[in-house]
Amino acid sequence: MVRARIVSQGEELVTGQRTDTNATRVAELLTDRGVRVLGGVTSCDEVGELVDAYRLAARDADLVVSTGGLGPTSDDLTAEAVAAAFGLALVHHPGAMAQVEAAFVRIGRPMPAVNAKQALLPSPCEVVPNPTGTAPGFIVEAGGTPVVCLPGVPSEMEPMMADTVLPWLERRFALRPALRRTFRAIGPGESQLQERLDDLIREVEPRGAQVGFRATIPEVHVKLVVPAEVEGAEALFEAAARGIADRLGLDCFATDGATLPAALGALLVARGATLAVAESCTGGMIAQLVTSAPGSSDWFGYGYVTYADRAKTDLLGVPPDLIREHGAVSEAVCLAMAEGARARSGATFAVSVTGVAGPGGGTAQKPVGTVWVGYAGPDGASARLLRFGRDREANRRFSAFAALERLRRHLVRADEGTLFAGRRRGPPPTLTENEQI
Amino acid sequence: MVRARIVSQGEELVTGQRTDTNATRVAELLTDRGVRVLGGVTSCDEVGELVDAYRLAARDADLVVSTGGLGPTSDDLTAEAVAAAFGLALVHHPGAMAQVEAAFVRIGRPMPAVNAKQALLPSPCEVVPNPTGTAPGFIVEAGGTPVVCLPGVPSEMEPMMADTVLPWLERRFALRPALRRTFRAIGPGESQLQERLDDLIREVEPRGAQVGFRATIPEVHVKLVVPAEVEGAEALFEAAARGIADRLGLDCFATDGATLPAALGALLVARGATLAVAESCTGGMIAQLVTSAPGSSDWFGYGYVTYADRAKTDLLGVPPDLIREHGAVSEAVCLAMAEGARARSGATFAVSVTGVAGPGGGTAQKPVGTVWVGYAGPDGASARLLRFGRDREANRRFSAFAALERLRRHLVRADEGTLFAGRRRGPPPTLTENEQI
Repeated sequence: MVRARIVSQGEELVTGQRTDTNATRVAELLTDRGVRVLGGVTSCDEVGELVDAYRLAARDADLVVSTGGLGPTSDDLTAEAVAAAFGLALVHHPGAMAQVEAAFVRIGRPMPAVNAKQALLPSPCEVVPNPTGTAPGFIVEAGGTPVVCLPGVPSEMEPMMADTVLPWLERRFALRPALRRTFRAIGPGESQLQERLDDLIREVEPRGAQVGFRATIPEVHVKLVVPAEVEGAEALFEAAARGIADRLGLDCFATDGATLPAALGALLVARGATLAVAESCTGGMIAQLVTSAPGSSDWFGYGYVTYADRAKTDLLGVPPDLIREHGAVSEAVCLAMAEGARARSGATFAVSVTGVAGPGGGTAQKPVGTVWVGYAGPDGASARLLRFGRDREANRRFSAFAALERLRRHLVRADEGTLFAGRRRGPPPTLTENEQI
Repeated sequence: MVRARIVSQGEELVTGQRTDTNATRVAELLTDRGVRVLGGVTSCDEVGELVDAYRLAARDADLVVSTGGLGPTSDDLTAEAVAAAFGLALVHHPGAMAQVEAAFVRIGRPMPAVNAKQALLPSPCEVVPNPTGTAPGFIVEAGGTPVVCLPGVPSEMEPMMADTVLPWLERRFALRPALRRTFRAIGPGESQLQERLDDLIREVEPRGAQVGFRATIPEVHVKLVVPAEVEGAEALFEAAARGIADRLGLDCFATDGATLPAALGALLVARGATLAVAESCTGGMIAQLVTSAPGSSDWFGYGYVTYADRAKTDLLGVPPDLIREHGAVSEAVCLAMAEGARARSGATFAVSVTGVAGPGGGTAQKPVGTVWVGYAGPDGASARLLRFGRDREANRRFSAFAALERLRRHLVRADEGTLFAGRRRGPPPTLTENEQI
């Protein structure tokens, strides 16, 4: 088994200004390919500390992956530290320089002189192209242990791992990718899902399957991995995947990496339908989630951010009397918002949210965290009261996802006969209706 | 200066199932008290790896803080590893046992026999009470370096740090908090800012000030820290802070932790003004950013997400002929969107965005990344063409911030006489107008 360590560099990490999500992601990508990650070393931007970090990470390891410290500024010390740690020269690399220059051409800005530093690399090394930023990565050999150095910006690191590093590692170590599937669920919490899958896990884990849980609020991702070396890997994988799908039921919205808005969009497109959104406390978050799905212009055209009461009347036609009588945070106003958005936009469906996100605005009857989410469609409208805690951004995020998820469930239920007929044996699963969705 | 390292333990960390937020939080708490965190070591649940991790963390350090591995199960190995790493005995600790038993009385459950393991601690040690869970923490001395071991559950670790560990450290090391300020800038990139501050950094760093850069796209945060121990710390801090502020000029939007929307909101509130937003490709992101600022209902009421061309006409009154003639992504439509949003909402100002975020929709004349951002106010309207790359989410994020930032600059410039008169000596600074803003 290939044994790896991860190095993370940056003052922002050791001063607690940023959480090291890169280490998590790299660990996940390596683990998925059957690499054993022993641990990691994090270092501040001091050359001595960094040199130690690289040496310690490489000791007894077959592979080191490092993130951070490839920028153009004086505190970006990875190339210098790696060269010093493993007795390599630091030289100007023309191929890397061409990539830095090309990156500036791509973004249409002149290259500051300081960026020439990004082509000063340990030699010999292999350059890792960076399709989305200026800093090229590189791979050096430290006594037979490859040390892979990537930038710390996650949106740069990620494609470099996917496009170059992982294929390179697969060849280098003859890695055989494990069979894996991620089930994205929304509604139940992590421990509820764990309980629901407990019997299956006890059955398949002794045979070599791994089932992991990861909460990315408000979703929980259930990950099934069967290493290629396991006996009967494919049959085990299929049986375990079927077992998970059956136990998650309607709570699972995607197994293909689709986001919740994309999953909802696919259901809408399949019936030639469109969506409008009407938002108060979420303040544009639903529209932003929806339009983060490429191709959403096929099924989304109108979003109404009616933060003020007057805007609910002006833009959605909610009667002022209704707001006066019931309050802006009420079932009646939530339904009127959804119906108004649907009528005024001409969309097939609309979702709506009105609530008290906090920190201010709470009352005894409607404390912070009180949120109504609703939807309207050709077959009527529905709203539900949700109760969250005191964290404003969490309340907004839960509410936005809940609004989309309630409509998704409605559409899946409507399709259920056809959707589930082909792939299910036996009675349909019990669908857990979580009180937060 | 007290130099510290952090140890993090757990299979869930090295397999990428969980991100190590404890290390971030501990680093932040220590840094705030003037402790220099050199780095950290993360380890899987193997005793050999853990023993190494503790030894490496303690080397040349004055303090080690560890999280994780204090639970009752067989993979909780912290006490065993710490004892082995520093040559201590592992003994049953009656005081710790009493705390574990008390924790079970608190939660009203009988104590499982396995939890007795949580009182098996290195000796001698000081026990750290755990008010919210079963696992007591402990502190041992490793050749004069205290090693503090806390549980990995954040809601347990946090009060143990606050109630016991930090007061203990303040006494032990006579800690004095550093002077610190973070300047949030938008417009120039990290390397441009580094170049601009280069002379100042070369002047103040030898005297003991630290100047760090952190890019949180599209912002760059410049952080000034002067440890309390530095000679003339306060005078140095004030001089360096003034130097940074002068060099950043209009590019700096906050030194008090305010987000860009909050900084813009403060300028609007100061003149009793309000804002409306009209968005095409950003699809609700501007409204969402604005409403993420608590209190934004004081200055924001109406957001128009006009993703479809027809919506631009219906909701904002953009003439269909204008869209036909110039295209939806054009200066004319961008201006009409801002003016329409302002007129229909009754807001004092409006900002607008229309562009090709990608991945589809690009043409030779208007490739992916072509974005117009505009604003309208009592003194007229303005729009500017921006050109970004091919990353849809980056394009949307840059565009949303650029729209808000252009209006902020407009308001600051209008206020400039009064804003700058009091605190500047000499001529006003040259204001760098970045082409992306």
